[in-house]
Amino acid sequence: MATIKPLENIEESPRVKAVFDDIRKTRNSDFINNMWIYIAVDEDLLESTWADVKRVMAQPSSIDPVTKEMIYIAVSIANSCSYCVHSHTAMAKARGMTDNQYAELIKIVSLAAKTNHIANGLQIPIDDVVEAEKQ
Amino acid sequence: MATIKPLENIEESPRVKAVFDDIRKTRNSDFINNMWIYIAVDEDLLESTWADVKRVMAQPSSIDPVTKEMIYIAVSIANSCSYCVHSHTAMAKARGMTDNQYAELIKIVSLAAKTNHIANGLQIPIDDVVEAEKQ
Amino acid sequence: MATIKPLENIEESPRVKAVFDDIRKTRNSDFINNMWIYIAVDEDLLESTWADVKRVMAQPSSIDPVTKEMIYIAVSIANSCSYCVHSHTAMAKARGMTDNQYAELIKIVSLAAKTNHIANGLQIPIDDVVEAEKQ
Amino acid sequence: MATIKPLENIEESPRVKAVFDDIRKTRNSDFINNMWIYIAVDEDLLESTWADVKRVMAQPSSIDPVTKEMIYIAVSIANSCSYCVHSHTAMAKARGMTDNQYAELIKIVSLAAKTNHIANGLQIPIDDVVEAEKQ
Amino acid sequence: MATIKPLENIEESPRVKAVFDDIRKTRNSDFINNMWIYIAVDEDLLESTWADVKRVMAQPSSIDPVTKEMIYIAVSIANSCSYCVHSHTAMAKARGMTDNQYAELIKIVSLAAKTNHIANGLQIPIDDVVEAEKQ
Amino acid sequence: MATIKPLENIEESPRVKAVFDDIRKTRNSDFINNMWIYIAVDEDLLESTWADVKRVMAQPSSIDPVTKEMIYIAVSIANSCSYCVHSHTAMAKARGMTDNQYAELIKIVSLAAKTNHIANGLQIPIDDVVEAEKQ
Repeated sequence: MATIKPLENIEESPRVKAVFDDIRKTRNSDFINNMWIYIAVDEDLLESTWADVKRVMAQPSSIDPVTKEMIYIAVSIANSCSYCVHSHTAMAKARGMTDNQYAELIKIVSLAAKTNHIANGLQIPIDDVVEAEKQ
Repeated sequence: MATIKPLENIEESPRVKAVFDDIRKTRNSDFINNMWIYIAVDEDLLESTWADVKRVMAQPSSIDPVTKEMIYIAVSIANSCSYCVHSHTAMAKARGMTDNQYAELIKIVSLAAKTNHIANGLQIPIDDVVEAEKQ
Repeated sequence: MATIKPLENIEESPRVKAVFDDIRKTRNSDFINNMWIYIAVDEDLLESTWADVKRVMAQPSSIDPVTKEMIYIAVSIANSCSYCVHSHTAMAKARGMTDNQYAELIKIVSLAAKTNHIANGLQIPIDDVVEAEKQ
Repeated sequence: MATIKPLENIEESPRVKAVFDDIRKTRNSDFINNMWIYIAVDEDLLESTWADVKRVMAQPSSIDPVTKEMIYIAVSIANSCSYCVHSHTAMAKARGMTDNQYAELIKIVSLAAKTNHIANGLQIPIDDVVEAEKQ
Repeated sequence: MATIKPLENIEESPRVKAVFDDIRKTRNSDFINNMWIYIAVDEDLLESTWADVKRVMAQPSSIDPVTKEMIYIAVSIANSCSYCVHSHTAMAKARGMTDNQYAELIKIVSLAAKTNHIANGLQIPIDDVVEAEKQ
Repeated sequence: MATIKPLENIEESPRVKAVFDDIRKTRNSDFINNMWIYIAVDEDLLESTWADVKRVMAQPSSIDPVTKEMIYIAVSIANSCSYCVHSHTAMAKARGMTDNQYAELIKIVSLAAKTNHIANGLQIPIDDVVEAEKQ
């Protein structure tokens, strides 16, 4: 039900194969999920997207891997992206998100949505003290 | 520029005062931000919203306080709620979010938005292995 | 802070004047709000938008005028349109929405947003019984 | 295709059973829809969500039951929540929404979306008279 | 899985038949896609929606037909409308959108989403020079 | 009203200066808009975002520069990003978008939003013929 058909024998392209090999090595898994198989129809899109995902999600940083995935899930829920909700929930679980953390995540995301709609509904004015420029 | 005017002498209402006192005590601060001042026009909305926020955001749980606020910010950005972005960024900083973590957060949120739009654009089919029911 | 400047002496255009006169007559008020003043830069956009709004919002139908405006506000909040939230809240009040109904509206909208994010987060499958085609 | 598997023998949990019994009693129906079955994996999420839904949607208030469901549908459409659109459309019909009202609802929601995008596109400035604070 | 059942023998209604005939003639194709079949349950919704689509999308204007469809796809992705993404991608291809243009479109849409979330996240102030009113 | 303060003497950083110089050269203009000034607080975010924008928006491709900006505006409207709507509308005008094309763009975007909400409201099933995999 995609809008495009993934290429057959997709890894015959050296550029695609190089990215897929790097995904396998970075994730220490043979599995390549559909995101990469579908965007491989355009090698530039594949390379630039993987470079982004690798740099932001797979490199050590001041935010731990499970938290990164939970933030990713939160955005994907709010943007109503089923594919992304599924794939990043699977990724978060693979990285160690517990059932309890997952339930907490859903509570935070849904509470945020609730107050987002209250604030946008009442058009609540921004508090003076939170304006960074005045600090 | 709100759609309503907050009540004057708002804490003369015992129900409002009880909630405001609990906010001050829970946050260990005298400051009451506009969200609470505006929704106090309806005491039921005030009480139920604060009960939610206190239970989810202020109680110890399997997700630490800074991470909770970062998830809240992520949803608020995706839902385009300026008030919420400002107030929860201020809250996250008050709870210890570093400048470096904040920059990471923005990178994750904006990357998620990018791939959300790729997946929704191509209508990428969900990978078989992520379907929980089949596991 | 708009992206365009409204035309000066805008009602010198007979097509604009005809629409503005019909707005005044339909609403029984001399006031023309900014929506119409700005979109008047394109007469086709002005005429077709007003025709839509008049047909759907100003004609008697199976939904009463206050309910119509409350539904309009609900969508405008979810789509994060400040202008629309303000103008339709003003319209709803002018048509008789009480403070109590307004508070109820905000509670329903924000609750819906909460469960929207829960359902999209967990990707809850649609119940068999609600599928109209099977009925 | 959910991200979680609902628990088996779910009503062996006294907390879950108490909520399900209250849902059945409140709605005067034996049917429990998937929303509740799936969120029952976390009893706190189940109890707090049902308490919210019961208080806002099932209690008599200044907005009648059919209108409440129509507002709920409007938000669910704008937030692109398929599950919620289906379940609340079924609920609205069960509460008496006519085919005619449903068609009207779709017209209002889609018109609101149209003008939301016009106003956000042109960044139309808020009319002075609708600013509540100045009134 | 729609919320409504399309009417049987739908073209027995003269108003429906007139619209369907015009769609076939305008598009030079016998195929009527589901959008029209489903909204035909309300003849006013059918007529007014087709009038809009015909005027904006099918009439010659300062934007060429392929570009029109690409803009339509862009909005449909951001609003997470699967049906619309599919139908307008098919329409864009039928009107001549190349695989290369389609890949470019996905790159632009996803990049825009990325910077949308950066700007909304940091609440970047609008540049003075872009304010049309001051020009 | 941003959540962060841009750095003072920002171009004393060689990495920032290199990006700003490239922006000036690529756009053939001395003006640096706020997006770049604000994200310069994180050099990695600045460099990677500019690399994306330059590659997708400033390089010749199968989509012309004005169309690229119109697609960008479309997404920014749907995602309710005021900053992005303003900056890309200014960019589109600078690249040659006429007043007439701009009015057409607003008509297409708002019409798409209307039918997006109709299709999501009625949960219209995807037409068999548009499924690429079956072709």
